[in-house]
Amino acid sequence: MLQEIRVFAPATISNIGCGFDIMGFAVEEPGDQIVLKISNKKGVRITSIKGDNGKLPYAPEKNTAGAPIISMLKKYAPSLGIEIEIDKKMPFGSGLGSSAASAVAGAFAMNKLLELNLSPYELLPFALEGEVIASGSIHADNVAPSLYGGFTLIRDYNPIDIIKIECPDNLFCSILHPNIEISTKEAREILPKEITLSNAITQWGNCSGLVAGLLMNDFSLIGRSIKDVVVEPYRAKLIPGYYQIQKAAVEAGALGCNISGSGPSIFALSKGKESAQKVGEAMLKKLYDSKIEGQLYISPINKQGPKVIYSK
Amino acid sequence: MLQEIRVFAPATISNIGCGFDIMGFAVEEPGDQIVLKISNKKGVRITSIKGDNGKLPYAPEKNTAGAPIISMLKKYAPSLGIEIEIDKKMPFGSGLGSSAASAVAGAFAMNKLLELNLSPYELLPFALEGEVIASGSIHADNVAPSLYGGFTLIRDYNPIDIIKIECPDNLFCSILHPNIEISTKEAREILPKEITLSNAITQWGNCSGLVAGLLMNDFSLIGRSIKDVVVEPYRAKLIPGYYQIQKAAVEAGALGCNISGSGPSIFALSKGKESAQKVGEAMLKKLYDSKIEGQLYISPINKQGPKVIYSK
Repeated sequence: MLQEIRVFAPATISNIGCGFDIMGFAVEEPGDQIVLKISNKKGVRITSIKGDNGKLPYAPEKNTAGAPIISMLKKYAPSLGIEIEIDKKMPFGSGLGSSAASAVAGAFAMNKLLELNLSPYELLPFALEGEVIASGSIHADNVAPSLYGGFTLIRDYNPIDIIKIECPDNLFCSILHPNIEISTKEAREILPKEITLSNAITQWGNCSGLVAGLLMNDFSLIGRSIKDVVVEPYRAKLIPGYYQIQKAAVEAGALGCNISGSGPSIFALSKGKESAQKVGEAMLKKLYDSKIEGQLYISPINKQGPKVIYSK
Repeated sequence: MLQEIRVFAPATISNIGCGFDIMGFAVEEPGDQIVLKISNKKGVRITSIKGDNGKLPYAPEKNTAGAPIISMLKKYAPSLGIEIEIDKKMPFGSGLGSSAASAVAGAFAMNKLLELNLSPYELLPFALEGEVIASGSIHADNVAPSLYGGFTLIRDYNPIDIIKIECPDNLFCSILHPNIEISTKEAREILPKEITLSNAITQWGNCSGLVAGLLMNDFSLIGRSIKDVVVEPYRAKLIPGYYQIQKAAVEAGALGCNISGSGPSIFALSKGKESAQKVGEAMLKKLYDSKIEGQLYISPINKQGPKVIYSK
């Protein structure tokens, strides 16, 4: 039996412009890592948390990585003990699915450590337990892409229906994380409860176009479809200089650029790594014009989801 | 130079449940036919209209097939004369894109007769001129699939962005046309101007799922995605026994069943012709239970759009 494992779970871009609450994709960088060790002492303990500036709880049942581990241990190996080390390697409150990545890392690590051979679909409920602790509600649009890898569509929540959408190989993402804080709760509360039928039609045209573009390897169509007439007008106000950054990305060659999840991170998709680098630098430069610091990530699409870094 | 041509343009199912105003597909049956003949007398004349019960105008500029022909003649061969025979082989006011089929037949026939080699994209504005005469506004969700064949997505109207979506070979359609009349105008006016964000999200999840299902040859996903929480609740009321017919279709094995366009026709998609036949018969039986007569069509998906029947 394995005694120790270190895993990585990817950050995720949810919404992708057009697909509010139903679409997302995973990136290779950034992401979270956790280490699990079999312990002689029954139950689950978090022994170390790095990279969180002291913000995350050590009580495992209150921790997004801890909660799925508690549930899985209870169900599959109640006589064992597990020690957790959490290594946050990405900003949180960033709109990049930080809590989802931790929850997925926990569920995936348990699956590998205990050699359970559960499918992503079987792991999903456990990972969602962690996400609920962080966000207070069931939203799978970050958990699903982090767990499945690639682009995912949540067609329905009742029952949950997740579809993995293949994408072109040469698609790269530029992610700009401005160092400002946005409350996910506030970003959700500012949204209207009703929208015009006309805007809804535009949005479902773009969602359909994005799925078609991904599956047909049509980069131009992917770019034309990354538009948002429903959510962006509200959330853009929370990000200083957002429209200037978006404009700079498109002028530098991005296929499309929009807000990642509830922000403040901004993502752009490009054809090829070189283009993504150029786009990212243009975005970062425009952010500096607003006197705001930030981090830039350039990453291919993560197609496999979480992975084992080592096990022994 | 050709002297005479007979063409067929397919009927179309718009909306497809989830994709109000943006999606549609073409069928092999029913459809419209028109004959064009080069005449010594300059200008455009309609010499015969069959199958319309006297409802269609002979003045070519007021006729959906005539209008595109007038425009194309003016632009490409102003010195010629054209005689038109219209052979309506499908019900109109049926929700099956009857006027779109006539407009497409007109534009397509001119393209072939004059050997213009225009692409579907280049023919689109001419066909839309005909559709505008019938419906009073620019809606391409029937014209596009009739002209392109297969499944089409209208991602945007401004500028118009039409994407043809490949579909599985073994997909068949059952179409039930109840002999009742619904005004397209009324069917549009009963729709709300605003919808809940929650319903909009459900709808764009299903639109995305339908496109994914078609491109991934996933029949089950196609079926799960043919749902409508936005338009169906309003338009179902205009079709007596609609929900019973839909239930009968699904119980007989249909992947999905919904209202075609603004109704009253009802379509169901099935895997294989035999299944589509069984589904269609179950739908027709249920219609008879409501003491309403109707026509049933069982058809493969039309993948090529309009076609030449003969030319000389």
